[in-house]
Amino acid sequence: MKKYFTLSIDLLGSETKLKDILTGLNQSLLRNLNYKFRLYGHAEEIKKIIHNFKRLSEVSEIINCESYISMDDKPSDILNKKNSSMFLAIKSVSEKSSDAVLSFGNTGALMSLSLLNIKTLKGIKRPAIASIWPNIKGESIVLDLGANTKLDPRYLIDNSILGSSLASILFKIKNPSIGLLNVGAEEYKGKDELKAASDTLKDFSKNHYLNYYGFIEGNDISMGKTNVVVTDGFTGNISLKTAEGTAKLFQSHLNDAFKSSILTKIGYFLASLAIRSVKDRLDPRVHNCGIMVGLNSLAVKCHGQSEYRGVSYAADIIYSLLENNVNDKIQHYVDDIQNKLVE
Amino acid sequence: MKKYFTLSIDLLGSETKLKDILTGLNQSLLRNLNYKFRLYGHAEEIKKIIHNFKRLSEVSEIINCESYISMDDKPSDILNKKNSSMFLAIKSVSEKSSDAVLSFGNTGALMSLSLLNIKTLKGIKRPAIASIWPNIKGESIVLDLGANTKLDPRYLIDNSILGSSLASILFKIKNPSIGLLNVGAEEYKGKDELKAASDTLKDFSKNHYLNYYGFIEGNDISMGKTNVVVTDGFTGNISLKTAEGTAKLFQSHLNDAFKSSILTKIGYFLASLAIRSVKDRLDPRVHNCGIMVGLNSLAVKCHGQSEYRGVSYAADIIYSLLENNVNDKIQHYVDDIQNKLVE
Repeated sequence: MKKYFTLSIDLLGSETKLKDILTGLNQSLLRNLNYKFRLYGHAEEIKKIIHNFKRLSEVSEIINCESYISMDDKPSDILNKKNSSMFLAIKSVSEKSSDAVLSFGNTGALMSLSLLNIKTLKGIKRPAIASIWPNIKGESIVLDLGANTKLDPRYLIDNSILGSSLASILFKIKNPSIGLLNVGAEEYKGKDELKAASDTLKDFSKNHYLNYYGFIEGNDISMGKTNVVVTDGFTGNISLKTAEGTAKLFQSHLNDAFKSSILTKIGYFLASLAIRSVKDRLDPRVHNCGIMVGLNSLAVKCHGQSEYRGVSYAADIIYSLLENNVNDKIQHYVDDIQNKLVE
Repeated sequence: MKKYFTLSIDLLGSETKLKDILTGLNQSLLRNLNYKFRLYGHAEEIKKIIHNFKRLSEVSEIINCESYISMDDKPSDILNKKNSSMFLAIKSVSEKSSDAVLSFGNTGALMSLSLLNIKTLKGIKRPAIASIWPNIKGESIVLDLGANTKLDPRYLIDNSILGSSLASILFKIKNPSIGLLNVGAEEYKGKDELKAASDTLKDFSKNHYLNYYGFIEGNDISMGKTNVVVTDGFTGNISLKTAEGTAKLFQSHLNDAFKSSILTKIGYFLASLAIRSVKDRLDPRVHNCGIMVGLNSLAVKCHGQSEYRGVSYAADIIYSLLENNVNDKIQHYVDDIQNKLVE
């Protein structure tokens, strides 16, 4: 087994505070002793903060970067910034100096630079962004959340394979159920591309390659109807962000409600721990980490306004995926299905 | 001005209780004195309940129906059920015996039967389902929520015109701002159909036909970035249902949290009124009413599991739209833009 796992972190180009990132990494390091980090950012600023974290200093290498990719950079700009913190962090992975890359910056840039440098697994056409979505029963894997906005049966099937692998590793279950997101559960509803993908997935399911449930609707995600929710990157992205907005709206209304009278203020005080825990459980700043699957190495994108808890949560997940050899397992899974299809 | 407004209600084919529907209508009648109702359902059962509501009995005509359209009926079945409560309720509108139709049943059926019998306004190709979505600043109009799953620039532009008319009437504002739902706010992001619609809307906006804001993202809906949110019926349906699921998840976590200890139980008791109000404000059973716009008369679809508050809320909105002559105004708006385009 590999002794250490090295994570390259792109520290620039987002609104996440450097202190939050380092605090989060330090917390994760306490739980995941065999972590090493490569920190891509402003060396002077990193040094000012990192000396507060003794163990973190010992296992981290700082790589000074002046240039970074901003949220507004266009695709053409991104490719030209060869010295940006994001580009160098990704390069360290493609050159095998590290095992995975974590960024808080421009998602499209992380996607296209990873695709170009880390490349996809054999048999996978396009990577997808997957996320762990809280639901009423626990958690599910939802993908694609924006890597690829084209609706195409082939991509939906790839996403089913990738999501199923990820769920089986992260949730430690054997045959994760897969739902295809649609405007109704009935077979005759929705777009042709979805019906075509559904037919293929039914065949796969009949032959026990995958455990396909059928079409599911938007509300089924939070109800935890299936372990994996598959959709295209356009629908998935809007769906994820709508859920984030709804959670924020709920929190804001709740805050206002509790301020409305002395009684509710006392009520809030008494119940504050419980309310805090609900907010944390659904806070996108804590939970929003997009795992880019289907690449030869892991690339993870965290919310652009992450808190230290979100950083440590993401670092924990990456560690667990590396420890479980996620890419080898996914490749094995993909090969296995493809061999079965050839037979 | 018209003296009475008659609403035809399809009482069958959903999980909403008859008692909830009649209670809701009765409540709305107290506020909207010039309402009349045509009730399509099982006459015997209606009579058993309605005698509790004196005024409601006086202004209601009961039409006995044995047949109904179920949630699982396929498009072909729907057209054949000429004696179903939904079909007869819609027919009463197309025959001018009533001004609008309200149903709690099969959305697709209500859509296709209305399209066939009530027909679209001149200049509008396909109707859309619009909903009033709560946001942090108040409310916005979101459409299409599932009438038409095809992504086409023409439909997106029609939806912008319809949504803008609806928002100006319901929210009493002059130039409602319109956002086009996309995976990013940047101009180069998203699908070609969206970019084409956006270019046309920009032209419209430059000429003051409409007030187009630009692309918005999923989280902007709940943040109230624009008065109107325009999307295709596929994305809108999944987005709406995802938001519903998230709200339910939040409520469920909150309920669990408050049960966790004696202190939180007391806290809940003290804050219960405030919490109730937040729940109500975001409860899809109260708020989920889909207004089918672009037809010659109003057709409204309520949540299949509505409560009496949801029914009275929907009846209030319908009354307000009828009183404000919504369809004449929309037609005027559409004609106006088309005349400007010809000039």
